[in-house]
Order: sequence, then C-alpha cells, then structure tokens
Amino acid sequence: MKVGILGGGQLGRMLLQAAANYTVETFVLENDIICPSAHLCQHFTKGDITDFETVYQFGKDLDAITIEIEAVNIDALDKLASEGVKIFPSPEAIRIIKNKIVQKEFYKKNEIPSSHFLITDSLEDLKKQVDFLPAVHKIGEGGYDGKGVQIIKEASEISKGFDAPSVLEKMVNVHKEIAVIVCIGQGGETAIYPPAEMLFDPILNLLDYQVSPARLNEKVLWKAEAIALKVAKSLNSAGLFAIELFVDQEQNVWVNETAPRVHNSGHHTIEGNYCSQYDMLWRIILNYPLGNTKPILPAAIVNLLGAPGYSGPAIYEGLEDVLKIENAFVHLYGKKETKPGRKMGHVTILSNDYQELIFQANKTKQKLKIIA
Amino acid sequence: MKVGILGGGQLGRMLLQAAANYTVETFVLENDIICPSAHLCQHFTKGDITDFETVYQFGKDLDAITIEIEAVNIDALDKLASEGVKIFPSPEAIRIIKNKIVQKEFYKKNEIPSSHFLITDSLEDLKKQVDFLPAVHKIGEGGYDGKGVQIIKEASEISKGFDAPSVLEKMVNVHKEIAVIVCIGQGGETAIYPPAEMLFDPILNLLDYQVSPARLNEKVLWKAEAIALKVAKSLNSAGLFAIELFVDQEQNVWVNETAPRVHNSGHHTIEGNYCSQYDMLWRIILNYPLGNTKPILPAAIVNLLGAPGYSGPAIYEGLEDVLKIENAFVHLYGKKETKPGRKMGHVTILSNDYQELIFQANKTKQKLKIIA
Repeated sequence: MKVGILGGGQLGRMLLQAAANYTVETFVLENDIICPSAHLCQHFTKGDITDFETVYQFGKDLDAITIEIEAVNIDALDKLASEGVKIFPSPEAIRIIKNKIVQKEFYKKNEIPSSHFLITDSLEDLKKQVDFLPAVHKIGEGGYDGKGVQIIKEASEISKGFDAPSVLEKMVNVHKEIAVIVCIGQGGETAIYPPAEMLFDPILNLLDYQVSPARLNEKVLWKAEAIALKVAKSLNSAGLFAIELFVDQEQNVWVNETAPRVHNSGHHTIEGNYCSQYDMLWRIILNYPLGNTKPILPAAIVNLLGAPGYSGPAIYEGLEDVLKIENAFVHLYGKKETKPGRKMGHVTILSNDYQELIFQANKTKQKLKIIA
Repeated sequence: MKVGILGGGQLGRMLLQAAANYTVETFVLENDIICPSAHLCQHFTKGDITDFETVYQFGKDLDAITIEIEAVNIDALDKLASEGVKIFPSPEAIRIIKNKIVQKEFYKKNEIPSSHFLITDSLEDLKKQVDFLPAVHKIGEGGYDGKGVQIIKEASEISKGFDAPSVLEKMVNVHKEIAVIVCIGQGGETAIYPPAEMLFDPILNLLDYQVSPARLNEKVLWKAEAIALKVAKSLNSAGLFAIELFVDQEQNVWVNETAPRVHNSGHHTIEGNYCSQYDMLWRIILNYPLGNTKPILPAAIVNLLGAPGYSGPAIYEGLEDVLKIENAFVHLYGKKETKPGRKMGHVTILSNDYQELIFQANKTKQKLKIIA
C-alpha cells in the first residue's frame, strides 16, 4: 500500500519510524529537503503542501494520504478523495478544524461544550467588543504553535488583537488543561487514550511539560472522555484526533481545540502506552484492528525547545544527565538549526510515582539546554 | 556523529528505527539495494561487506561502525580502527566469534563452560571420530541461520558432516535453550537483559518462538547471567552481545554460541523492555549512559518465516487475526520476496500470564502465513 504524508516535520518522523513495522510504502511531500522526515521515507518529494497542483500530483497515484499539519491544500484532497484516494482524516474534517471560526461553529452546531465566542472580522470590529473581555482572540487561519493566539484581558490590550477574521472566545477560568486522543477506525470502531494533563510555558506560550494519565476525579474523566468522543464522532471521519479540553474551577469541561492528526500531547504513547499513537494511525490507515491504548506506566513529556538567545547549528547540552534517569527516553528530531522556542525534541519519562515524574521532568528541563 | 552499519537486513532496519531518536547520521553498506534498511538511513552504499576495499572506503570518513552480521571484512575494520574509527564490537571480538573453531578455543582458554569439542579439517578427518558421537558438527566459517550446523547422532550419519575445517561438539542433553544479551559501554559499564527461552522448529532448525524472561530457577538464572557476563567481558570490547546457552538436565549451564551484535533473541525488547536492544546499542555507540533492561511484561516472539512451498512476492495471510490480539505487535521486514523458511518478520506478544503467551504465540503461528 502506498501512503503519503503531507508535511515532513517531527510528527512525520515518528510516523515513519512506526511505519517500518509494516510493509507500507511511504511518500512524503515537504518543501524543506533536510526536514526530520526526509531520510526515513521511501519517496521524498520537495513541494508546497498548500499548493493545489503540487498536492494533487503527489497524491494521485497513492492509495491513501494523511497529514501532520492542517495547513494543507484541502481542495486538492477533495479531488483526490473523489478519485478514490483515502484521506485520513477526511478533507471535510480538516476543513472544519483548519479554520478556527468554522471549528467553533462546528462545536456550537453539535452542542459540544466550548466557551462562548464572537466572530470579529477586523481590529475595528474587535474594538467594539470590550464588554466581552477577558477573552482569547484567535486568528481564523494560519495560527500555529502559540502564534495567532492572543489573550486580551482588558480594554487597554485590545489593540494586540488580529486585524483579520478571528474568533473572540470568553476566557475560561482554567483549573486544568488536558488532551484526549480519540482513534476512529475505518469501520467506525473507536479507542481512547487516557487524558494527558498539560502545563504551559508562560513566556513562549508553548506546551512545556505534561503528565499522563491526567490526575482527574472520575466524574471529570468520564465527562472529558464523553466530550472528546463526541467531537471525534461528529467529525464523521476515520482518523486520529487530539482534543484539547479545559477543566474549569467548577469541574466543567470545555473543548478548547481539536487537531485531526497525531499530536504533541501523545508523544509519550511511544514508550508509555502499549500501542503508540503513531502505530495506531497506521492501524487505522491500513485498516487493521485498533491497538491497546492502556498506559504501561504514568509518563511525563518534556518538550525540548531551542533556548532563548541561541540560533544556529544545534548543540545538546546535558543529554548525558537526562539519559542517566531511569526510564528517560530522548527523541531528538534531527533539526540542524536551533532558534529560540523551536521544537527540537522531547523527553519521555516513565514512573509509577507522579512526584517522581514531575521531579525528573523539572530536572530534565533544567539540565538539557539546546544552544548553538 | 556519522555511524555506519555493515549489512542492511532486518536488524539494521530496527537499528535505524531506533536511530531516529538521536541526531546520529546513518550510513548503510549492503549489496541488495531493496534490502530492509535501504530507505531508513541517510546514506546508502551498494557494496560487498566482505570486500576489503569496499568496507575500507565506506568506513574511512565515519566516526563509528557497527555490524548486523559477522560475515564482514575484518581486516578492513582493523585498518579503520587503527585510523581512529570506533568499531562496535572490536574487530578482534568479531574475529573470535566469526570462526566457530576460534570461538570454541576462546571459551576453552577463558574457562567458560562450553561442551567438549574436537576440530575436524575434512570429512575424512571427521569419519575417525565415531567414538565422539552423538555430536554437533559446525562449519568454521560461513554458517548462518541454521545452515552450517549438522547434528550427527550415530556413525551412519557421519557423511552428513562438512568437508571443511569445523568443530565437532559433544551433544548436550538439553533441558532448555536460553539467550542472554549483555551490553558493555565504552567505559566498561555493563547491563544484562533477562534471559529469553527458546523453542526451535524441528524441520527448518530455525528459532520458532521464544518467551522472555525465561522460566528458570534462581540458581540457574544466576549461573546463566554470570557465564554470559564472563563471555562478554572476555571479548574485551564495548558492544552488545547475545550469548546462547544450554541448560542441561542436571541444571548445568553451557555456552552454545555468541553473536556480537543485536540479535533475533532480543526482538521482544522493543515492546517488552523499557530500553530495547536497538536503543541500547545506540547508547553504547554514542557513549550515552546504558538504558534500563527490565521487562515491562513477559513477552513472546513468533518468527514469521516464509511458508514451505511458496516463493515470490510476499502475501501476509491472517495479519488481521493477529493484530486483534491484545498487545500483539507486528514487525514486517519489508522483504518483497518470500521463500520457504526466509525470515520475513516477527510478532511480539506481551502478557502477564505465560500460558496466555504460549497460547497466543501458537495462535499467531497458525493464523499468520506468509505465502506468495
């Protein structure tokens, strides 16, 4: 079976590591020829994943296509789907998620709990919504990795908003941020990974570290799983979906955002769960039975971001200290150049003891620096 | 760091899957351009690993080299080592193991328990040794995967022996056959995987399935570990070593053979142990701390061999039934052509219950057929 991946970053890299367990023939489309995935596929095509003709030509002789980023040409995927190429997830599911306005409307239409929102077409438009603050302004299209999201607490900050079609979401009084990965097979069968609990870097607004399974009371856990499943099922497509949720101070659960693909919040499943999210996506694409999502041990993920103030060929300082930790697993994405905040790798740590997990995660964060 | 692998088979494939967790730049030398490793390395060189000049030219600009088969040009590795390329394991360790006569003499010299043996230079020579029977005749060089090994129980079978320099080993009254993987870091630090217990296919004389950790009483376990450690340390080289041992009816432990590399008996460590043998070898080569060899759960490996009577493009029958088993992990090596007895893949099954493991291993063996 010939399967293409749109995008060649670290998610593609880990997908390709898992692909080598099967007989699948892999194709990658990506503009950067030294990207993390380039050398791990059978066929690499340099090209723009947002260009109709490039995506269509790449895909027309393939059996299936998946994505590792939403910023792809969906019209080309529509045409490919109409010609019999299987797309995971469906172009329609990507279309709903790619635009944050459409995504919010989708939640509303499907009665999925998500914070109240307004649509703003311009900065002028936004400035009329002072009464709606505190809120989060999210650009409709083109946001990624913390870009395109702006917290606006009060009127004086309103000019930080986006002068483009955006959603303005009521700020949730967040107790915990969690993520649930839902897997839907070609026959509609489902599997759910236990939620992961996230902690963010307040400066870079990027995921800092997370622990999994999330420490939640049973009622919240059930609510989160039910809501995540409802999101994934409403998208009406086979595939793997990461649903980011807020648990508020009153134990209500709200959908924040969904990603229709393997996700940063599931990196720990490589060592921490019996079937990794990467293996799971291949099982879905190849139409095999779904795997076992149970955790082996509680896991922490520490994201390795380029240290502030350093740009250039990456140097990994303190790697040895981290690899000495029992059950610490390092994943470096092979990016030649580091820059401040760039995702350069991650470390997964396994332990039965959450205190130990958090201790070792902090140690990893302090010891391991990516400089140039 | 630039690291080369001599050989491009399934062991190389799994090494390369693990390599992508680090920033290592990978090179493979192999004659078969559609081998299981070809598309997973950064640099593939078509060439003969037994040829001095080919191996030397391949290796001279690398930082380190490892092997996935012993049948390599050791003189070239000697020259490369003298010029500062790190070889894992040392050329001398490969030399000792590559020739079964030298290997047996090494055990004797180091007082490592191994069955009594004679050296035979020719079939004529062998025929004089009727009194030594029952015995196993092993060709000095060139044996692989059950070839080059002949059981000779009585005088009437003696003409089945090899007309080449060989060892004739006293037959051990085998109770169990086990394998222990020993890891030696560049600083001499060691780690040992729990023994695996093997079962052989009586027809093809290939490993059929195994369970790990082996079911041994504590005294035998300690003996096995001590002997395996002694073998690896006596080879006086950093690297990863798989020591195959016999446990006889009297609970004595004898070394059968050693492999100076990642090994079939360690495939289960990918899912069944915290640190896989493949990750471990990278830790050794990259001079990182050794990983955790502890088992996550007991594991079975079923080798997927080409079914008798079928040659040609491989078809995997019954894959779906196997992937339905909880915690069954399929590894297909991506070999285009099957033939009877060819190693086409393996399945690892995890379970807390050995009865369940053996039941599922047998089920896998019966359900999954590789035909053409």
